[in-house]
Amino acid sequence: MARASIYLGLVHHPVINRQGERICSAITNLDIHDIARTCTTYGTKDFFVITPSQDQKTLAKRVIDHWLKGAGGQYNPDRKKAFEQIHLVDSIDDAIEAIGRPRRQLGVLATSARKMKGCISWERLEKMVYKPEFECILLLFGTASGLHEQCFEQCDGVVCPIYGPTSYNHLSVRAAVAIALDRILGIRRHENGYNTSSGL
Amino acid sequence: MARASIYLGLVHHPVINRQGERICSAITNLDIHDIARTCTTYGTKDFFVITPSQDQKTLAKRVIDHWLKGAGGQYNPDRKKAFEQIHLVDSIDDAIEAIGRPRRQLGVLATSARKMKGCISWERLEKMVYKPEFECILLLFGTASGLHEQCFEQCDGVVCPIYGPTSYNHLSVRAAVAIALDRILGIRRHENGYNTSSGL
Repeated sequence: MARASIYLGLVHHPVINRQGERICSAITNLDIHDIARTCTTYGTKDFFVITPSQDQKTLAKRVIDHWLKGAGGQYNPDRKKAFEQIHLVDSIDDAIEAIGRPRRQLGVLATSARKMKGCISWERLEKMVYKPEFECILLLFGTASGLHEQCFEQCDGVVCPIYGPTSYNHLSVRAAVAIALDRILGIRRHENGYNTSSGL
Repeated sequence: MARASIYLGLVHHPVINRQGERICSAITNLDIHDIARTCTTYGTKDFFVITPSQDQKTLAKRVIDHWLKGAGGQYNPDRKKAFEQIHLVDSIDDAIEAIGRPRRQLGVLATSARKMKGCISWERLEKMVYKPEFECILLLFGTASGLHEQCFEQCDGVVCPIYGPTSYNHLSVRAAVAIALDRILGIRRHENGYNTSSGL
């Protein structure tokens, strides 16, 4: 079955703080680990860590090199495999450029914990992935208190918030990415390969 | 619709290290935050952080108190709400005792990244939750390289590993908990309340 290739972007700028002000957030080491492992589990394409801060990129590169070239990768080859798909880029535009597809073939979708008018349901997103109107989808997740509105202007749509059976929606970005990828690439899709071993 | 109440246990002892040896793992601060937030999102009952180490419990209690009684809760009331359901206990037995139900009404289920013979599929687990054979389910997640086999002996069953469309199954425990709760309490269950706002 044809399905869109999924790329993931973790945005550190422009995002907002708790006061709604535009900021550049610091990279969280565990975000990189958790999200890279989740992306590898769900077979996404590149995982873009997006920040224009040179200092932050230098720091992140040291962490990534530890797992790709240093002692980390020897100690834990599975972690190394996950880190292979990480790319540090300055901006959402640079992630789009790195994907290298004509813009009309690439759906750039934001996520938000706030419900936006006209947001794309998870059911609709699943259809976008499996009956692709785009060849590739770049799914953007904001750090701190979420993506700055400027990001939404660059996007083709915003996915609806993730809810459980309560009104509480303060998931960590690490949990949100895991749930999002499982919703679109996980439990309900077992045609191809290993999902049979999940016992479903 | 009647459904079983879900409790969650994050086990630090007995778990195994990468060599398969029985260890007591250290508590990871971000595990507590992420899993408490995920539990609150999905409306679980208590979240048990399980370790017999007094030092580790003292440390964890300081973190928890910061969010429940200290500056953390004032700064971020949503985080405080998530922390309210955390309980530090010495052992799986103590978690079971704290739930306070007759053992026959409580299903204690382990999770594992390794496929166990006779493991419970996610589909079957969902049925166990919504057509309850137990009034309560305690779902146990191992830290480090997973639960020690001794844990499985205390359980009524083991849930099958979480897979995406690849053979890679090295999710963080934070991601695994998020996916697990969404699979059983999330996307496919919209009868009660807020899930309608997820757009599905």
